[in-house]
Amino acid sequence: MSNKPIPYKIYLEEDEMPKAWYNVRADMKNKPAPLIDPATMEPITLEALSKVFCEELAKQELDDTTPYIPIPQEILDFYKMYRPAPLVRAYCLEKKLGTPAKIYYKFEGNNTSGSHKLNSAIAQAYYAKQQGLKGVTTETGAGQWGTALSMACAYLDLDCKVYMVKCSYEQKPFRREVMRTYGANVTPSPSMETEVGRRINAEFPGTTGSLGCAISEAVEAASNDPGYRYVLGSVMNQVLLHQSIIGLETKAALDKYDIKADIIIGCAGGGSNLGGLVSPFAGEMLRGEANYKLIAVEPASCPSLTRGSYVYDYCDTGKICPLQKMYTLGSGFIPASSHAGGLRYHGMSSVVSQLYHDGLMEARTVEQTSVFAAAQEFAKVEGILPAPESSHAIRVAIDEALKCKETGEEKTIVFGLTGTGYFDMYAYQRFNDGQMGDYIPSDEEIATSLAKTPKF
Amino acid sequence: MSNKPIPYKIYLEEDEMPKAWYNVRADMKNKPAPLIDPATMEPITLEALSKVFCEELAKQELDDTTPYIPIPQEILDFYKMYRPAPLVRAYCLEKKLGTPAKIYYKFEGNNTSGSHKLNSAIAQAYYAKQQGLKGVTTETGAGQWGTALSMACAYLDLDCKVYMVKCSYEQKPFRREVMRTYGANVTPSPSMETEVGRRINAEFPGTTGSLGCAISEAVEAASNDPGYRYVLGSVMNQVLLHQSIIGLETKAALDKYDIKADIIIGCAGGGSNLGGLVSPFAGEMLRGEANYKLIAVEPASCPSLTRGSYVYDYCDTGKICPLQKMYTLGSGFIPASSHAGGLRYHGMSSVVSQLYHDGLMEARTVEQTSVFAAAQEFAKVEGILPAPESSHAIRVAIDEALKCKETGEEKTIVFGLTGTGYFDMYAYQRFNDGQMGDYIPSDEEIATSLAKTPKF
Repeated sequence: MSNKPIPYKIYLEEDEMPKAWYNVRADMKNKPAPLIDPATMEPITLEALSKVFCEELAKQELDDTTPYIPIPQEILDFYKMYRPAPLVRAYCLEKKLGTPAKIYYKFEGNNTSGSHKLNSAIAQAYYAKQQGLKGVTTETGAGQWGTALSMACAYLDLDCKVYMVKCSYEQKPFRREVMRTYGANVTPSPSMETEVGRRINAEFPGTTGSLGCAISEAVEAASNDPGYRYVLGSVMNQVLLHQSIIGLETKAALDKYDIKADIIIGCAGGGSNLGGLVSPFAGEMLRGEANYKLIAVEPASCPSLTRGSYVYDYCDTGKICPLQKMYTLGSGFIPASSHAGGLRYHGMSSVVSQLYHDGLMEARTVEQTSVFAAAQEFAKVEGILPAPESSHAIRVAIDEALKCKETGEEKTIVFGLTGTGYFDMYAYQRFNDGQMGDYIPSDEEIATSLAKTPKF
Repeated sequence: MSNKPIPYKIYLEEDEMPKAWYNVRADMKNKPAPLIDPATMEPITLEALSKVFCEELAKQELDDTTPYIPIPQEILDFYKMYRPAPLVRAYCLEKKLGTPAKIYYKFEGNNTSGSHKLNSAIAQAYYAKQQGLKGVTTETGAGQWGTALSMACAYLDLDCKVYMVKCSYEQKPFRREVMRTYGANVTPSPSMETEVGRRINAEFPGTTGSLGCAISEAVEAASNDPGYRYVLGSVMNQVLLHQSIIGLETKAALDKYDIKADIIIGCAGGGSNLGGLVSPFAGEMLRGEANYKLIAVEPASCPSLTRGSYVYDYCDTGKICPLQKMYTLGSGFIPASSHAGGLRYHGMSSVVSQLYHDGLMEARTVEQTSVFAAAQEFAKVEGILPAPESSHAIRVAIDEALKCKETGEEKTIVFGLTGTGYFDMYAYQRFNDGQMGDYIPSDEEIATSLAKTPKF
């Protein structure tokens, strides 16, 4: 350990910022299983994948051998607007807990999208622009991804069409207005603009929509116009690749002060933040250079790693995207309504799934009332009001720090603080009013859903 | 100009952060006129002022000779949690405008209160704690000040009682929940908890309150318990003193890269942000060391500097706080409902008023639709979604940059970006829907209000 005093916040200098993304698949001996084309049920080709995604992104999706992929200059310039994200030493939280542990968090919330989603949104928008496309389509539930994509498209002067799950569109008008302010076209889903939307509206009059339906509308809208492509904010390999900027910056900041992490913790929904954060550390483990305790934290209401199966499954309810082998609860699994919308996903990115399957990572589940208690404790001493999703990682970081208090160990704990909770105040209100509940799905519920995964 | 490349964001190192606040009054030959005690109509004594404010704050309020006041270590530690605030080079905005001007903004929105208010909130809460008080009371309208004070009190484990104007309490439930999450007690005003609240409720059944009434309730609540003091988020000398951290950091960041500002722009409500930003620069002008063009930007709907009178007036509708000599529209002036709640104040801090009166500062008014157009233009290329208040400064910064485009001058423009607009999306919605209007008060309206200022 160096004698340099460690500041509250470690900001890298611009010339210390990563210039390439890290592709952890290149260092994995057990590669994630190939994507399957839903049309042929065979491993998907670059050609077929390029009909869904931009060509360059399709290449990144399939590339499991190149360890470092240079970040184009225009994306580096955009990153400079809101990055480097600080690595913060949680001195105040440590003091409050009375723990000998040293706690750090990588804060990704210092941008208007309020989360790490912007890291991949700008990359996907950039490649769409490079390919000469007019615009992109996507779906959004809680709204972080849609906001991030709107910002990226506004910067690049690209059309952005967002299908927003109707209940969110109505309950989160402010998220919607942020996207509109950045010039995005936001449509409540199901709409009457697409065939699938009209069919669902006819079949279920008055429905408030679902993420699965919004994906289907976004894909249909993109496929009807050759100037558009559909883009996705999590789960895919390309997204984890872009999100590796989180882990690379974290590692550079730790190295700058000769800090060696013992435990690295991230919340896990589709896996984009977690995968991005742990990738460079997992890479060191895979190359036999270091050892870390990596912990994925998932909500007890949607426990894909801890209670799902490791099988091929659809990524979307509409069964349009390529299939992935992943820890899944079944693509028809409907997680209980919770206040961490970003973690309500039935499956886990195939990279994270494989790392977990190979024993490089642990997984924990936490219940939402204990998550919000941790969020409040953290906010009071560290100032930042965290997103419900991020607070899953806070919960486990606090739990690990309290273990150190018992044992007297001075472990170094790093966790990902993916975003802020400014648009989640209804959830905090439920918590403040003592009206928040917890839900754990039954074994039968999970088994019934898993019985419907495709057979090979 | 140095040859060091100027990064997108200049962050000071921790050891470069200011260790003392700067008190511009010490360098003013024409000092702001003394505060007047409303009970005696004579200049107020330290003793009388200490009944309203904490002793140390009362001393700071009256001290117009000490140029530098050391920042206590505990406040410095708190500042490290969210400061230094970055000085951002608006490369993308410059490119979009095609201007030869160099534009910088000091961004104060990277904290959960979403604004610069936290700089003074922590100082006031700290001195209350030092004095052994149990807690503080205050009022809040738009909610930034109440949020900042809640955060500071949570950190110091101090009670925080906020009287929130009832219409805001109902229309901005999320602001309220942020304060509650930080443990504050938030009461809609007028309430039935205070004498003045009960009287107003009886007199005006169903009233949705006013800032004046909320101040009166907060002052009454504090005066009923010797363990409490009332605290205020703007206008007062002590607040400008604390906010000088904005200008000091800005100057340190400019100096670090040998940048000389030509124009410095801030939005002006009660004057706390503006005064804090310009203080060190005005100090250089007062000492004859440099020259700058300082511009105060106020809303056309509430033009105290440009259309008010420079006379003694009450700071609050309840006429309880000391009187100040200031540019005012009259303490009974009710600004038209606008979406920049933080700028809807009838008067201007006496320091800013005196600097303006002595010709060290210019003032401009802008209308809100043009302000929101500037906000949107800024957001699309710089990423940050600005608060409506801050966007007043953006408007004038863009106007000045466009003038440079005409003349070819490479001026360096610095403006204060005081905060983010995440809790102002209703205003953006009005703008996005083309439903926002402008309002300029008539000369008669202002004259009628000014006729009621106290006579000496």
